[in-house]
Amino acid sequence: DHIIVCGFGYTGWSAAKELLAKGAEPDRIAVIDRGEERVRAALELGLIAFRGDATQEAMLQHAMIQRARAVIIATGRDDANALVLLTARHLNPTVEILVSAVEEENVKLFRQGGASAIISPSTFGGYLLAAAVGHPHFTEYVQDLLTAGGRVNLIERPVEPEEIGRTASALKPDILLRLYRRGSVIHFWDLQEGEKMETGDILLVLKSTPDATASDRAA
Amino acid sequence: DHIIVCGFGYTGWSAAKELLAKGAEPDRIAVIDRGEERVRAALELGLIAFRGDATQEAMLQHAMIQRARAVIIATGRDDANALVLLTARHLNPTVEILVSAVEEENVKLFRQGGASAIISPSTFGGYLLAAAVGHPHFTEYVQDLLTAGGRVNLIERPVEPEEIGRTASALKPDILLRLYRRGSVIHFWDLQEGEKMETGDILLVLKSTPDATASDRAA
Ligand SMILES: [Ca+2]
Ligand SMILES: [Ca+2]
Repeated sequence: DHIIVCGFGYTGWSAAKELLAKGAEPDRIAVIDRGEERVRAALELGLIAFRGDATQEAMLQHAMIQRARAVIIATGRDDANALVLLTARHLNPTVEILVSAVEEENVKLFRQGGASAIISPSTFGGYLLAAAVGHPHFTEYVQDLLTAGGRVNLIERPVEPEEIGRTASALKPDILLRLYRRGSVIHFWDLQEGEKMETGDILLVLKSTPDATASDRAA
Repeated sequence: DHIIVCGFGYTGWSAAKELLAKGAEPDRIAVIDRGEERVRAALELGLIAFRGDATQEAMLQHAMIQRARAVIIATGRDDANALVLLTARHLNPTVEILVSAVEEENVKLFRQGGASAIISPSTFGGYLLAAAVGHPHFTEYVQDLLTAGGRVNLIERPVEPEEIGRTASALKPDILLRLYRRGSVIHFWDLQEGEKMETGDILLVLKSTPDATASDRAA
């Protein structure tokens, strides 16, 4: 039940730091990188770290991929990413594999190669730059939304048993933003109309962070 | 009143595509890149494009930086980004400058160099990878939120005159997520309590996209 991070450049490092901030135990994150300095940086965060090549089966087996919960691939090169992806998928047909694509055009190839999700940081960076033009608060808000820090969190979670049959207002003050149900999507404007939650629903919720709410109420 | 994009790699390209998707006129976007192929790609999108070095004053003047609304800097190298930033700020002390930082540690230096906002795509990529572990819908939702496509948009805008004195419920079905007022932040849970909007407020709003809402109502 651990997470393997292949490649500990800026993206892998940022992912690991954020996993820790979200509550992951450091010894449940295993880093594989060819660079001595990067391995040292991982060890300094308290993570498990292996120096070596994640494209080699032996290395992924060493990191116990058979029992891993997820593999994050962010080597910084799409050729290496592809080889790690195919190796990881070969060794564990069901593990969740998330790939950071350098080039947008490789997203479809990584999907074809068995990735569970693919993120292109450059593409998202472009989205953020475009959205930030004339909007001085935008990036700060998105950073708060996506990370454990700040005052709000965007959370994906299954519906809880006590929420079944209730509407979005049951979550107040948290806001139900979207609901995924049997392959279809229910949007916030329909949720406001009183759509009831059902067994198996997946919720996207905007939550206040507990400390923030507490200090806010105390103020 | 145009936008200059310095560097037309994946990030600059993605930013320009998204600006177009948000409604920018192609001839209000000027690209500067040293690469012939990238300049051709920009021209194919209908953009203005100059082949050359954005670190040179003459090139930024050629792109009429004195009259630009914003400059996006995404050369793919932080040393070049720094030089473009200082040159652009020297030529136009008030233009909005947005920088894509390769390395997180240079964010503070770009701020010091006069950037209006700095985005580190690698760092954001890491946030997204960490958030996506175990959450299959997360990245899809964030992409919808940040881009003109999809069913919802995250919008930053000034309060409108007719909204002054009214509460968040005046925006329904859109959701008022956050409000910036004279340097302070008002969160959604306080907005739900009936906080009234005031002159000068900046709103962060979750909007349904017009077409999506229309087709949804028709369904
Ligand atoms: Ca947060
Ligand atoms: Ca959208």
